[in-house]
Amino acid sequence: MSQQERTEVNQIGEFGLIEHLTKNFEIRKAGTLLAVGDDAAVIDHFGRQTVVTTELFIEGVHFDLTYTPLKHLGYKIVSASISDICAMNADPAQITVSIGISNRFSVEALTELYDGIYYACEHYDIDLIGGDTTSAPQGLIISVTALGEVSPDKFVTRKGAQQGDLICVSGELGGAYLGLQLLEREKKIFMESPGVQPDLDNRAYVVGRLLKPEARLDIVEWLAAQEIVPTAMMDISDGLSSELFHICKDSAVGCTIYEDKIPFHDEMREVAYTFEIDPTACALSGGEDYELLFTVKQEDYDKIRLSEKISVVGYITEAGEGKKIITRKGNVHDLQAQGWQHFN
Amino acid sequence: MSQQERTEVNQIGEFGLIEHLTKNFEIRKAGTLLAVGDDAAVIDHFGRQTVVTTELFIEGVHFDLTYTPLKHLGYKIVSASISDICAMNADPAQITVSIGISNRFSVEALTELYDGIYYACEHYDIDLIGGDTTSAPQGLIISVTALGEVSPDKFVTRKGAQQGDLICVSGELGGAYLGLQLLEREKKIFMESPGVQPDLDNRAYVVGRLLKPEARLDIVEWLAAQEIVPTAMMDISDGLSSELFHICKDSAVGCTIYEDKIPFHDEMREVAYTFEIDPTACALSGGEDYELLFTVKQEDYDKIRLSEKISVVGYITEAGEGKKIITRKGNVHDLQAQGWQHFN
Repeated sequence: MSQQERTEVNQIGEFGLIEHLTKNFEIRKAGTLLAVGDDAAVIDHFGRQTVVTTELFIEGVHFDLTYTPLKHLGYKIVSASISDICAMNADPAQITVSIGISNRFSVEALTELYDGIYYACEHYDIDLIGGDTTSAPQGLIISVTALGEVSPDKFVTRKGAQQGDLICVSGELGGAYLGLQLLEREKKIFMESPGVQPDLDNRAYVVGRLLKPEARLDIVEWLAAQEIVPTAMMDISDGLSSELFHICKDSAVGCTIYEDKIPFHDEMREVAYTFEIDPTACALSGGEDYELLFTVKQEDYDKIRLSEKISVVGYITEAGEGKKIITRKGNVHDLQAQGWQHFN
Repeated sequence: MSQQERTEVNQIGEFGLIEHLTKNFEIRKAGTLLAVGDDAAVIDHFGRQTVVTTELFIEGVHFDLTYTPLKHLGYKIVSASISDICAMNADPAQITVSIGISNRFSVEALTELYDGIYYACEHYDIDLIGGDTTSAPQGLIISVTALGEVSPDKFVTRKGAQQGDLICVSGELGGAYLGLQLLEREKKIFMESPGVQPDLDNRAYVVGRLLKPEARLDIVEWLAAQEIVPTAMMDISDGLSSELFHICKDSAVGCTIYEDKIPFHDEMREVAYTFEIDPTACALSGGEDYELLFTVKQEDYDKIRLSEKISVVGYITEAGEGKKIITRKGNVHDLQAQGWQHFN
């Protein structure tokens, strides 16, 4: 290989890599309505549409079994996958789960993992329909593919946001990132002094945000009940800022958000202060919140404000106006794209 | 964990593990026609059915990049996945591909892998519709999910074989296993004496069987053209013997096959002799042939014999008669279930 060019993956990043690898690929099947490039793909089946998404979870990259109970992990991988189905405005229906396992894992350990998976299937009312089981040289590897259904043309991509649309987020942001900081700190203390018990008193919220996230299927159902179809939608897995960049790029628009409109949980703010991290930074750049980010027409505002679960954080502008955040003090800053980076 | 019971995965094996992990799971969705336990799952979409299968490929377990060009690997993982769709008597339509990569892999290397994937998509006339890209602590991990379509009730499971049905296989068996032996031998020689060039003259067939297998979509199409619907079908990825055990178990039947009816390629037989391995053993227990094994009603025999690509190797018996092979010399032996074992 010495004579050949070598480009490191981190030179172009995850999204650059996907773009590079898929740029010349053409669609062959009439039923393939939407392929690579959104939260999920969409397939037409005679007027009813199937939504498909797939995700890979690798020990040491996506989870740390030192502080992640296997049952929670099982629940979390399902939530994370279902979250992408919700982000298309679709109803989750089925999942497949494949696992690669080293001989470190006993049948009892895997049973715990599947207990969590089944618990999540029950919670989201979905079926586990298949998978693959194989050995791995090290660690635990899990691949989940989720399928969902959506009625004709009700699926929502990242492409439809228009100037004047309101930018909405569900729930509260930044908690999972702080849960991770907290558990990493306790792990470090434990490694140095194995006798010390973890200090997680009154930290159930942030730890729960990391270990047992929920896909916001309730928001998808609420939107349907209110007859609101978002103009664009995606889930927030890499931080609000990074996701806004995706929507602005795919919709060819700009955005302005208000720092004081970003929803925080009290405990999250408290933990941020003990770590001396700005809560806003956690929301903008922290990963794994699995909340929904979506845009709606202004005329939907009267309906949206009925929901305590949804916050309007800003509005869509022309592309030329860029991507801005207005701080609590009224200063205008450019949003930074910095999200959760896998390849750094 | 010291107080808890610990069962090693290899004590119960891959199929035992799957059975253990999925035994208590109930189906919730009316659309889920078939879940865990066959080559693929089947989902109903208003009278048209979607077939879903997923597979995990891990470096060091499923492939060795010392002698596997990445482009071939890309082609092979698609073939292997499409093979499971064919095994349901369905038409492949879409795939998702997720990759986990260590920093050993450059963008150029991944481009080669995707060249192979795209080449296979073109060959099988399918779409790549999504995936996930992430870093991995070591090696290359690939997860493929394949979707296919089949008209109502035309899908074929492993459950329908009945006494008197003919047992058919496509193509020739055992070649991939010998390709693996050959490449492993050359790798060993190369490791010991790096100057020595690999001796693969006149071995294109067996090497090709391992490195660039074909899914037998042509057989599925031929069966449809002849209006033959097999009573049971699966693909041969773990050796003929192991697959016959699956069909006999799931259909609650027995089987008798004839050693002299098992189809071999001349080169395969030749290589088997140089390795002093019985060609029949390669066919019965070797992995990765990706041919189709299926059963048909006796009245379909006149049509089946028109195809040079299909061999009738035996017939289905009552469960009580067991699983038998009649040797060239006319002796009757019990078939051994020994297939390709991942957990040994």
